[in-house]
Amino acid sequence: MTTHYFEHPLNEKTRIYLRVEALLNQLDVAAQFSDDMQHLIFYRSLFDLLEIFEQIQLKSELAKDIEKQRLTYRSWLNVEGVDQDMLQNILNEVDAVHSDLMGAERFGQSLKEDRFLSAIRQRFNLPGGSCCFDLPALHHWLHLPLENKKADASQWLSTLRPLAEALKLWLKLTRETGHFRAIQANSGFYQSDADEANILRLEIPMHFGVYPMISGHKNRFAIKFIEFESGQASVANVEFKLAVCS
Amino acid sequence: MTTHYFEHPLNEKTRIYLRVEALLNQLDVAAQFSDDMQHLIFYRSLFDLLEIFEQIQLKSELAKDIEKQRLTYRSWLNVEGVDQDMLQNILNEVDAVHSDLMGAERFGQSLKEDRFLSAIRQRFNLPGGSCCFDLPALHHWLHLPLENKKADASQWLSTLRPLAEALKLWLKLTRETGHFRAIQANSGFYQSDADEANILRLEIPMHFGVYPMISGHKNRFAIKFIEFESGQASVANVEFKLAVCS
Repeated sequence: MTTHYFEHPLNEKTRIYLRVEALLNQLDVAAQFSDDMQHLIFYRSLFDLLEIFEQIQLKSELAKDIEKQRLTYRSWLNVEGVDQDMLQNILNEVDAVHSDLMGAERFGQSLKEDRFLSAIRQRFNLPGGSCCFDLPALHHWLHLPLENKKADASQWLSTLRPLAEALKLWLKLTRETGHFRAIQANSGFYQSDADEANILRLEIPMHFGVYPMISGHKNRFAIKFIEFESGQASVANVEFKLAVCS
Repeated sequence: MTTHYFEHPLNEKTRIYLRVEALLNQLDVAAQFSDDMQHLIFYRSLFDLLEIFEQIQLKSELAKDIEKQRLTYRSWLNVEGVDQDMLQNILNEVDAVHSDLMGAERFGQSLKEDRFLSAIRQRFNLPGGSCCFDLPALHHWLHLPLENKKADASQWLSTLRPLAEALKLWLKLTRETGHFRAIQANSGFYQSDADEANILRLEIPMHFGVYPMISGHKNRFAIKFIEFESGQASVANVEFKLAVCS
């Protein structure tokens, strides 16, 4: 890879959304159980999600944000120059995920009540705690035929579908608001205003050998580039691309 | 798989050894970075190991245990009926790993001093905390060519080689002391004496649909079989194989 793709959330809620998105992606891939270790990622990601659900009211936050997007898109109805067919498609999609979201159980409720998952969850965070003697029930499960394991995973993940669909749509619509522009960070530094932004997206050529440290909030942000090899602030004029998504 | 292979440690130290063995195995496989998620297992296993190293004096424990095995095998020198060539080979191997072990740094010392690893370790245990914005340096590293990543992993793992070799030998010699015997657990229960045993090894046919819950210590143990589906104690006469390893 010659480009380093990078996303940075500009508020705590979006930070959680992006973490949840990453965990859901990991779950989808790991649910194939295509090697001897994917179950480790599967269960870890599942239990990380449950922990996040216990920390914040993800469902009501997400419902509010989807509602906000709905109002924005509705305000474009009958506006000249706006493709009304495309707009109506988006609004239908927003309506559908919002309604599924409102009808869903509290996120993770049935997973938390699952006897097998609860028993595993307790010991899974011990260092090296996924050995057979720490988790005998899990190791029995690992010996089951692949189709049984996939069926279990698919049933568990189905309870997260309303969350996954709503989050995917919100992030898609949010990311689409941003457009990549070429930027130069003079002496490794760049700052700018943002207008109620949620996510910064960056494309950084690998040959600069730098990664970004970003601070900021929805209205203002600063990007400092760090040299990977030295760990020090870069003084190079780094050319990168930036999209500000709100 | 039609048989459930199971190992149970009969003391706390062996419990740690088996966990460390599992983590080292995970590291070896994950160090191939052959898919987009193996790095998660690689770093998690590495940090789990560091945590274990901080909790117990693994190096001196293992050195003592290897020394004990050396004395046992030495006592068979010149004993009639013992294959002396084979014995000498084992003793040479024991001498070599013991000497490498004594010459090694404190386990994990150089890994703990590694700037890159230390920076990642702090945030890796956050739920969903391996996102790019939580760990920007890691995400730069993930974009490096595969051979660079493998070289880093190989260098880090080389510092654990004396531990890995010593542990592998100790567990191999320990496991070889046990011989599988056919056993019936009447009404799902079996208990027996053990003579200074370290590990129980079980082979349980999957068709019984049970997994073992084992309690005990080096001189006595009890195995209770649990029905996987119901989570209740089994009342079946479970036929399984057992090896007691000391």
